[in-house]
Amino acid sequence: MVTKNKTIHTAPSPTSMEEVLLIYQEDILSVENQIKEALSSQIGLINDVFYYILKSGGKRLRPLLLIMTSRLFNYRGTEHIILGSVMEFIHTATLLHDDVVDEASLRRGKKAARMVWGNQASILVGDYLFSRAFIEAVRLKRNEVNLLLSKTCQILSEGEILQLIYTRNFSMTEKDYLNIIEFKTASLISLACQLGGVIGGAAEGELESLSRFGLNLGVAYQMADDTLDYTAEKDLLGKTLGQDFREGKITLPILHLMLKCTPKEKSKIEEMFNQSHLPEKDLELIQDLLGDYGSIQYALDQAEVFSQKAKQELSSLPSSPHKDGLLIMADYVIARNF
Amino acid sequence: MVTKNKTIHTAPSPTSMEEVLLIYQEDILSVENQIKEALSSQIGLINDVFYYILKSGGKRLRPLLLIMTSRLFNYRGTEHIILGSVMEFIHTATLLHDDVVDEASLRRGKKAARMVWGNQASILVGDYLFSRAFIEAVRLKRNEVNLLLSKTCQILSEGEILQLIYTRNFSMTEKDYLNIIEFKTASLISLACQLGGVIGGAAEGELESLSRFGLNLGVAYQMADDTLDYTAEKDLLGKTLGQDFREGKITLPILHLMLKCTPKEKSKIEEMFNQSHLPEKDLELIQDLLGDYGSIQYALDQAEVFSQKAKQELSSLPSSPHKDGLLIMADYVIARNF
Repeated sequence: MVTKNKTIHTAPSPTSMEEVLLIYQEDILSVENQIKEALSSQIGLINDVFYYILKSGGKRLRPLLLIMTSRLFNYRGTEHIILGSVMEFIHTATLLHDDVVDEASLRRGKKAARMVWGNQASILVGDYLFSRAFIEAVRLKRNEVNLLLSKTCQILSEGEILQLIYTRNFSMTEKDYLNIIEFKTASLISLACQLGGVIGGAAEGELESLSRFGLNLGVAYQMADDTLDYTAEKDLLGKTLGQDFREGKITLPILHLMLKCTPKEKSKIEEMFNQSHLPEKDLELIQDLLGDYGSIQYALDQAEVFSQKAKQELSSLPSSPHKDGLLIMADYVIARNF
Repeated sequence: MVTKNKTIHTAPSPTSMEEVLLIYQEDILSVENQIKEALSSQIGLINDVFYYILKSGGKRLRPLLLIMTSRLFNYRGTEHIILGSVMEFIHTATLLHDDVVDEASLRRGKKAARMVWGNQASILVGDYLFSRAFIEAVRLKRNEVNLLLSKTCQILSEGEILQLIYTRNFSMTEKDYLNIIEFKTASLISLACQLGGVIGGAAEGELESLSRFGLNLGVAYQMADDTLDYTAEKDLLGKTLGQDFREGKITLPILHLMLKCTPKEKSKIEEMFNQSHLPEKDLELIQDLLGDYGSIQYALDQAEVFSQKAKQELSSLPSSPHKDGLLIMADYVIARNF
C-alpha cells in the first residue's frame, strides 16, 4: 500500500491539458472500447446513430473527470471504465433529445443526427441509450451509484424543461439562468466527479467537495460555452453562430446586455428575439452591443468566478498529480475559444 | 380451463373483470396516491402534462397485474404499490414519446399531450418520467428489480425502433410483427408480472412462468388492440379509426390480408399505404377487404391462441383466487370491443 501510494505521488504532475490527456489516455481508450462493446445492438439503426455521434468527436469530459476523481483515491478497479461509458451514454442521449427539442441542424460541425435519421430515430435511440446506461450501472450492484444516477437524470430533464419554459421569456433572471445550467449541464459533470469518489471510497465530506467541484466546474463550462455562440470563429464552433439567439435561448451575455442597454436597444433586441428569422446584420448588431456593454466579458468573468470556486473545493483534499490535473481541468473548461 | 379450488383460500374467487377490479380496488387506489405523491415536481409544467394523461383514463393494467402476481405469493408489504407506480411512470413516458414519434393527435379520446403542450414538452416530460421511475425503483434496493427494469426499458425502445424500421415496409413478416409487439408492449406487461413474483418471493421456475404468462398476455392484448383500429366504434376507440394504416404501421390483419388477397388488390393497398392522405372511402375498402378475407377474425384467433398460452403458463402454480383473477385478465385483454 505505502509503496503504491509513493509510486503514484512521485509521478510527475501534469502542467497542461495535453499532459492531462496523456496521463489518462489509456483509461479513456478503455472507456471507448467499453462503449463500443456495449453497443452491439442487433438493430443496426441504433448502432448507426450512436456511432455517428460518437465518431463526430466530443471531449469525453465526463469520463475523464470520473477517471481522475477515482484516481484521487488511488482507485485501481475497473468500475471507472464502466461508469465512464455510462456517462457518455447519458450525455449522448441528452444530445439526441436536445437536438430534436431545439430543432438543431448542426452538432460538432456535422449534420445533427436528426437531420440524417430523423427526429423519430433520434428520440428512440436516445431512450435506448438512457436504458443502456442504467443496465451498465445496475450491473455494478452499487445502490449509491444507482440513486445518484437516476436523480441526476431527473435533474437533467428538469433543466431542459426549465430552459423550454424560459424560451423567449425576458422575465428570466440571472438566478433562473444559473438554475437552468446547473440542472441541464453541471449536474451530470458533478455526477461524474461524485461517482469517481464513490468507487474510490471517498469519505462523505470528500464526496460533497467533489460534488461541488463538479457543479461549479460545470457552471463555469456552460457559461464560457454560452459566450462562444456569439464570439466563436464560425468554422471552429461546429454549429451556427447565434444559434441560441435564434432558438430563443436567453444566456448570460444577453441577460447582462438587457440590464445595461438603453430602453430603445432593449425593445429592438426583444423584437429580434421574437422574429422567426435572424438576418446576418441583426446578429452583427447583437454582437456589437454585447461587445460595447462588456456583456461577453461579464459572462467570461463569471465563468472565471465559478472556475475558481471549483478549485477552492479541492483545497481540503491532499496534494497529488490527480488533484493538479483536476485544477488544470477547471482552467481548461473556460479557456476554449472554439 | 379455470378450476376453482377454494379449499385453502377462504376469500371468494372473482368470476368477472368487475369482481377482479373490486378485489384490488384498494391497492390500485394506493398506487394512484403513490403516483400523485411522487409527482409533486416544483416545475408546474411537468405535473400538468403528467396529470393530463393520468386523468384521461387508462386501465392501470400493469399495476394491476403486478399487484395480483405479488398476491399469488401472499405478499403483504408495500413494494407492490411503489412498483405499481413505477410501471405507470414508464408506461406514460412511452405514451408521450410514442405520440411524438407517431405524430398522433388523439389519445384516449382526448387531444394527445403533444397537441396541448407541444412535442418538446412531451419528449422532456417523458424523459423526466423514465428517471422518476428509476428513482422510485432504486429506493427499494433490490438489484433484481433494477436489472429487470432497465433491461425492459431497453427492449421497449428497441421495439419502437423496430416498428419505425418496418413502417411502410411490406417485407415485414408475421414473425417480425410478433417480435415488435413482444418488444414494444408485451415486455412491460411481462415485467409487471415478474416484479410481482420477485417481491412475493417466487422461485426461479415460478418467475419464468410469470414472465411467459405476461409476455403471452401482452401479445394477445396488442393483437386484439390492433384489430380495433379497423373495427371499433369510432366514438369508443378514443383515436382516429385507421390511424395505424395512416401511420404506415403494418399490423396482423393487414399482414394476413396481403397474403390472401389478389395481386391487384395488393397493389391497391400498397398504393394507399404510401399516400399521405387516406380518404374515408379507401378506409372502408380496406375494412371490407379485411372482412372478406377473414383477416380480422384471423388476428382475433391468434390473440385467443396467445391468451390460452398465457393461461397455460399458470397451470403449475397453486390454485387461488388471485390465480383465478389472472385467468380472467387473460380473457379480458382480448375481449374489449372499444
